[in-house]
Amino acid sequence: MSVTEALAQYVTHSTLEAIPRDVRDEAKRAIVNYLGCALGGSIEPALDVAIRTLAPYSGNATACVLGRSERFDALHASLLNGIGSHVHEYDDTLPKNFIHPSVPVASALFAYASAIPTSGRDFVHAFILGFEVESRIGNTVYPAHYDAGWHITSTTGVFGAAAAIGKLLGLTTKQMVWAFGVAATQAAGLREMFGSMAKSFQPGRAAQNGYTAALLGRADFTAGEHALEGPRGFAAVTAAEYDLSKITAGLGTDFELRYNAYKPYACGLVVHPTIDGCSQLHHEFHPSPDAIAGVRLRVAPRVLDLCNKSDLKRALESKYSIYHAAAIGLVRGKGGLREFTEEAIADPALKRVRDVTTAVGDATITEDQVHIEVVLRNGQTLTKFVEQSLGNLHRPLSNEQITEKFVDQSVLALPRSQVDAVVDQCWRIDTLANAGDIARATVPRQAAAPRTGRVTH
Amino acid sequence: MSVTEALAQYVTHSTLEAIPRDVRDEAKRAIVNYLGCALGGSIEPALDVAIRTLAPYSGNATACVLGRSERFDALHASLLNGIGSHVHEYDDTLPKNFIHPSVPVASALFAYASAIPTSGRDFVHAFILGFEVESRIGNTVYPAHYDAGWHITSTTGVFGAAAAIGKLLGLTTKQMVWAFGVAATQAAGLREMFGSMAKSFQPGRAAQNGYTAALLGRADFTAGEHALEGPRGFAAVTAAEYDLSKITAGLGTDFELRYNAYKPYACGLVVHPTIDGCSQLHHEFHPSPDAIAGVRLRVAPRVLDLCNKSDLKRALESKYSIYHAAAIGLVRGKGGLREFTEEAIADPALKRVRDVTTAVGDATITEDQVHIEVVLRNGQTLTKFVEQSLGNLHRPLSNEQITEKFVDQSVLALPRSQVDAVVDQCWRIDTLANAGDIARATVPRQAAAPRTGRVTH
Repeated sequence: MSVTEALAQYVTHSTLEAIPRDVRDEAKRAIVNYLGCALGGSIEPALDVAIRTLAPYSGNATACVLGRSERFDALHASLLNGIGSHVHEYDDTLPKNFIHPSVPVASALFAYASAIPTSGRDFVHAFILGFEVESRIGNTVYPAHYDAGWHITSTTGVFGAAAAIGKLLGLTTKQMVWAFGVAATQAAGLREMFGSMAKSFQPGRAAQNGYTAALLGRADFTAGEHALEGPRGFAAVTAAEYDLSKITAGLGTDFELRYNAYKPYACGLVVHPTIDGCSQLHHEFHPSPDAIAGVRLRVAPRVLDLCNKSDLKRALESKYSIYHAAAIGLVRGKGGLREFTEEAIADPALKRVRDVTTAVGDATITEDQVHIEVVLRNGQTLTKFVEQSLGNLHRPLSNEQITEKFVDQSVLALPRSQVDAVVDQCWRIDTLANAGDIARATVPRQAAAPRTGRVTH
Repeated sequence: MSVTEALAQYVTHSTLEAIPRDVRDEAKRAIVNYLGCALGGSIEPALDVAIRTLAPYSGNATACVLGRSERFDALHASLLNGIGSHVHEYDDTLPKNFIHPSVPVASALFAYASAIPTSGRDFVHAFILGFEVESRIGNTVYPAHYDAGWHITSTTGVFGAAAAIGKLLGLTTKQMVWAFGVAATQAAGLREMFGSMAKSFQPGRAAQNGYTAALLGRADFTAGEHALEGPRGFAAVTAAEYDLSKITAGLGTDFELRYNAYKPYACGLVVHPTIDGCSQLHHEFHPSPDAIAGVRLRVAPRVLDLCNKSDLKRALESKYSIYHAAAIGLVRGKGGLREFTEEAIADPALKRVRDVTTAVGDATITEDQVHIEVVLRNGQTLTKFVEQSLGNLHRPLSNEQITEKFVDQSVLALPRSQVDAVVDQCWRIDTLANAGDIARATVPRQAAAPRTGRVTH
């Protein structure tokens, strides 16, 4: 049996009962984290432009766009959910293959469930399968595929969305093989687009295109049956080196969700240890910004290659400043979306601490680590060594921390009471008779969402 | 100026007056040839399935699907026009880069013009620009890109459609650069899908996605501004070797339409010389099938590698049989769609001639050539050497031959009187106040199109 067929058969034959409890729990964590990202991003200009431009092309408006009052057909809603949930680049990451896995899969699933009644169990099951499919395909072509310049989140995400929606649509194995074929023919997305609206468009389009592939598969729209392993298939065409055995090795016993990580901070990963350590000092010692005479950081050398910016002019630059990272940790004890805004870079307290912070590269420090010394005006020195940064696989966010992050993101778009109700419901997704209720619960209660919280331009 | 910007600027600044008359005439030939393909393919199952599946997802039904009575939004109509016009694989070809150039561009343009009033002059102008853009991008990455397994028609077609629609929408150069970025992020399509419905889906999706890119560009949806030449842009990511100078060399003076070729026969290119030569013998000598005692072909050796099938079971096999090629030429004097059906392979006269035909490879014969000897029962021998096969760049189809092909294709779907009216109107496209009239004129006059003419399964 070909690996394409084996993967298709696994998806069509899978039962939720055969999936271990820890994997199902991790799926809920991923879904809650995803939904917070979608709500936080729901008021961004990239989404506004896409909604305005594509509205005339939407079919029957049966589906919700997360965090928005506009309604679209489920294919467009998949795209729009994908733009909103990726635009802040705050979504989950698989460190093993650099995929942001939840966006393509969950964007399609929430669109589907908002249009077609879907039990919470079926939703979670389809999510797990979509996640598994995209990550395994990613493992197969990583790193050559990513290094070549492909945005691996979208190129593999289209398969994940096809698997998830195809499962809910009840495709046969043969139809799932065709759906994977139609997905493969649409696999696209270039890293050259990073830093523009087109970046978040990519995983959105993957969600929409994977959903379309599942619809066409169900209708017996034929496709090449060796989408993954064929000589002109996805792996051979898009990766100089690949290992097809990773599609099927441990399939059904080793689950990719176990390797998923959630960003605690809304910025580049390499400054995370510094925010983490400085936040710990903030919570332990509550140093006043005025009392801080100097901050000395020892960081992995690559941090200074990437994030050595101290004179910040634009909000986006603050996401890649090791000095800003130290300041927000020490002054605010966090690194949420609002720590990387125009307001934040102009905050005098943050500026003061940035200006007294120095950093040196040290080859003995890993990218998960940092050594911090904070010298106070009274002569006292606070020190902190971060061995494993919060949010990496060895120190995962707790469910409470995921909830805090959700709230921090979602209050940009929705009233706090609505945010609390949605997050509570989302943690119970596997018990809901209709998972689409969650999507409907994110529609802003006001006629129009507030617009003050935007953090990108 | 980057090549992406230079190409964008050429498109936005171009005037029809600056384009030579021969190029404008060639554009009309390409458009007529395209439309015949679209009508011939309009009753195929691949299109039926796509229409049925995607109908609920169509927005405002302002656009026509060529040859069909269903109406869709212009984006879906672009996709569906693309499926219909490529499904017979009878569309035009650029021998220099293997692109079938008209489908992605004209599929989007006919959808656009059927929804939004567009003068024939503007239509032709936009077509020429879209054609130019996709072929130049193809030249840049060919052959490495094609050899890797990319379906170059769709990967470059998305840029062509973006350029054509972007021109009609009046994009600024900056917006066109962004449209090219959004096009690049959607460039996809694998040769692994050849032989399935997914193949014709690819250039259709390119038309739809390029159209979407133009809409988003006009709305200032930002994208990476080095879509073509960036280190993680289209050329670097999808081709092991590429030459960016081909984007701009001779831009505005050397036109890609001058290198376009039209298939006279609905089958694999390598058997074209045999059909051509045998058809000439048919018209010159009218040999009765019963009078033919033997046919001896000397062909390029590769012909026997690819087309050495004599015992035909399925219609598709007949497109790759050198023996069937000789038979249809000698017996029917043509190689239209109906010469490659179940009916044709069962035709006793064709079977007789197939059975007495032999072929030998000869390294002195090129793939454009054939040497034919037909031995008649009366002892007479008819011979023909084809130096350049009909339809290649050295022996292009005449306008009359393009019209004949159009009629042969279109009568599968539409009454002859309607076909004649449409082809006449299409040759006058540059004089029409509204090019969308052509699309509307292809809607079947009957309530439902006849279904007997289908040639694929």
